[in-house]
Amino acid sequence: MAAIMVILKQTYVQNGGVKMRFLHTADWHIGKRLHDFDLIEDQKAAYQQMIQIAEEEKVDAIVIAGDLYDRALASEESVQTLNGMLEDLNLKRHWPVLAISGNHDSAIRLETGTPWYQATHFYLHTKLAQAFDPVTIGDTQFFLLPYFEPVDARLYFDRDDIHTVQAAMEAIVAEMQTHFEAGKQHVLVAHFFAAGSSHSDSETKIEVGGLNAVPVDLMACFDYVALGHLHNRDALHEDRVRYSGSPLKFSVSEKDQTKGVWIVDTNPFAIHFRAITPIHDVVELTNNFKTLIDPAFYQDINRNDFIAVTLTDVDVIPNVMQELRQIYPHIIELHRQQALTVDAPTEGVQRRQLAPMTLLTDYFEAVTGHALDDQQQKWAEQSLQKLQHHDTEA
Amino acid sequence: MAAIMVILKQTYVQNGGVKMRFLHTADWHIGKRLHDFDLIEDQKAAYQQMIQIAEEEKVDAIVIAGDLYDRALASEESVQTLNGMLEDLNLKRHWPVLAISGNHDSAIRLETGTPWYQATHFYLHTKLAQAFDPVTIGDTQFFLLPYFEPVDARLYFDRDDIHTVQAAMEAIVAEMQTHFEAGKQHVLVAHFFAAGSSHSDSETKIEVGGLNAVPVDLMACFDYVALGHLHNRDALHEDRVRYSGSPLKFSVSEKDQTKGVWIVDTNPFAIHFRAITPIHDVVELTNNFKTLIDPAFYQDINRNDFIAVTLTDVDVIPNVMQELRQIYPHIIELHRQQALTVDAPTEGVQRRQLAPMTLLTDYFEAVTGHALDDQQQKWAEQSLQKLQHHDTEA
Repeated sequence: MAAIMVILKQTYVQNGGVKMRFLHTADWHIGKRLHDFDLIEDQKAAYQQMIQIAEEEKVDAIVIAGDLYDRALASEESVQTLNGMLEDLNLKRHWPVLAISGNHDSAIRLETGTPWYQATHFYLHTKLAQAFDPVTIGDTQFFLLPYFEPVDARLYFDRDDIHTVQAAMEAIVAEMQTHFEAGKQHVLVAHFFAAGSSHSDSETKIEVGGLNAVPVDLMACFDYVALGHLHNRDALHEDRVRYSGSPLKFSVSEKDQTKGVWIVDTNPFAIHFRAITPIHDVVELTNNFKTLIDPAFYQDINRNDFIAVTLTDVDVIPNVMQELRQIYPHIIELHRQQALTVDAPTEGVQRRQLAPMTLLTDYFEAVTGHALDDQQQKWAEQSLQKLQHHDTEA
Repeated sequence: MAAIMVILKQTYVQNGGVKMRFLHTADWHIGKRLHDFDLIEDQKAAYQQMIQIAEEEKVDAIVIAGDLYDRALASEESVQTLNGMLEDLNLKRHWPVLAISGNHDSAIRLETGTPWYQATHFYLHTKLAQAFDPVTIGDTQFFLLPYFEPVDARLYFDRDDIHTVQAAMEAIVAEMQTHFEAGKQHVLVAHFFAAGSSHSDSETKIEVGGLNAVPVDLMACFDYVALGHLHNRDALHEDRVRYSGSPLKFSVSEKDQTKGVWIVDTNPFAIHFRAITPIHDVVELTNNFKTLIDPAFYQDINRNDFIAVTLTDVDVIPNVMQELRQIYPHIIELHRQQALTVDAPTEGVQRRQLAPMTLLTDYFEAVTGHALDDQQQKWAEQSLQKLQHHDTEA
């Protein structure tokens, strides 16, 4: 026989179990890329800020509402990164961790190790059945509901009439209520699309579309609902049903969102937001080329941010992407505000004087918003040489 | 603060730490396929027998010497299966588990959860550095050395002169000896190619070829060396340096091997083998077609085994694979003992009378050892029809 002592830093122990403060986060999407750019260092930095906030706020637990990984088959680097974060949170910093799998996670892969985790109050639920076994910490019962499909509820309840997430949730909430302990606070942690919210670009369209909405009033029996799935913390307008949003901006459509975590007090209920400052923000720049490459303009801009450029120019600009990237290394999108005037008759003569390679490059950039990469450039040059050779011979 | 009690079933506790009995296994290769056949049910059955043996033998610990998975990126089914086995061994049956990653495992993926596992005496080492932190159970220090490359040792010891596994092992063993506690038994658990052993088909050639051999005498300071990598328990002829072999036959070249586990007593040293009986054995049948399909012959044969057939016939046999599979559903190989006499002049007339489809089928089977599958048959028929149509038109 051996005894292992588990040291936790809950203040509720000192407070006789009458209050509870936790941090609500979700949608870490470890392994996600933003266009061509790896976000792992940004994700690690966001994690470090979250830890800092958790320490400052003296939270009793960390809630992570799904989508820990960006994909079911995470890379080794992603696995190593997430493992390190969870070990740090729970084993090194001694926080209870309450987490669920999201639609981007493989529930089966994420389940690895979970039976051992509970010994140190790390609860990572990946199966619907686990949602009905609440985790009690301090004054609060946490119901950890992993991402699920209607079929999972149909099988679990043995009810053929469950075909939507809404119908499933009616049964799930009813079943959860039978486990409510009087005098406790009841918190639901879940990962789905709740009614009243709007989508952003960086959730996978198919999966979001396949999810029916869960009406917010269905969850009225909970003192707080900690949601994951939508990346905007303002997606709902409810006091006690909230998305934390992702800790980072994962698309240009999220450029105006403030990212961070909620700090939730259970008794009396109180909530406040703590922002996370990214290494690289996601910003949009709309201007003409000449201004964009003018030091007087860009000296005030954080040129290392992830930048979506909208050019107001209507003229052809040779090597536009390469030129811009010399100043703004992390351009993630390049658009034109108006269509390029490539076919304007007044420009015809001028254009005809351009070298074929320049014409091709301009056209490619105008259409795709990207410069040719080295390999594409080589192919293009070879093809043009062949054509030229052909012309000379003929 | 919370305390978690860990219940272990070590007899050494009752025996005052003066003796130790453990089970030595390796090379589970969860997720491996044998030609077209999924082995997961065979692997689960072998596991159940191993448990039975461990219970009967009242072992104090289970040693798994690497290659838990068959591939770095195991399928969800494989992950679920291995997770279930490890949970059963350690959390349900309360055995200490001493395991390492092998060359087929992804050390990084296998590492998931390991910092939590140690609380219940489940040690799964995946990094070279962990090899120098012995696990003491009863009277024995276990040094768990995961599969490694010379470069890992070069970096760990900061020694540019380490270029072979042998050189690495010299440094590793010397370093391990500095951690030897007097009066304890010392067991090394490792996964590599030890000198004096011979290869079988089912290890990946490239990886085995890339490993230099480790001379057995290098490990003389250990009371026992529990090896994984080679699938033959008789690969070495040493009392105290042994491969356990795989729990199942993973190729036809292993057909004559007895599979199972070693039961090792430390003090006084004693060892005995316990065989595992597979659901499907791997066997070779060499005979002529007529005999093979004769009930008088096959009634005494376990027709559900994985069977490698060597036909002694020299004649063309139409649909030979389909015919044989009706009797032997798990044929994994089909060879001819002698070359098919397809080009013998005496047969020319006879062959010319066969339908084109029969000729094609026979040829395909003679060359590949497999019958055409449904799709291939369809393509072949369509092509022949087209040709015939063409001939008629011309």
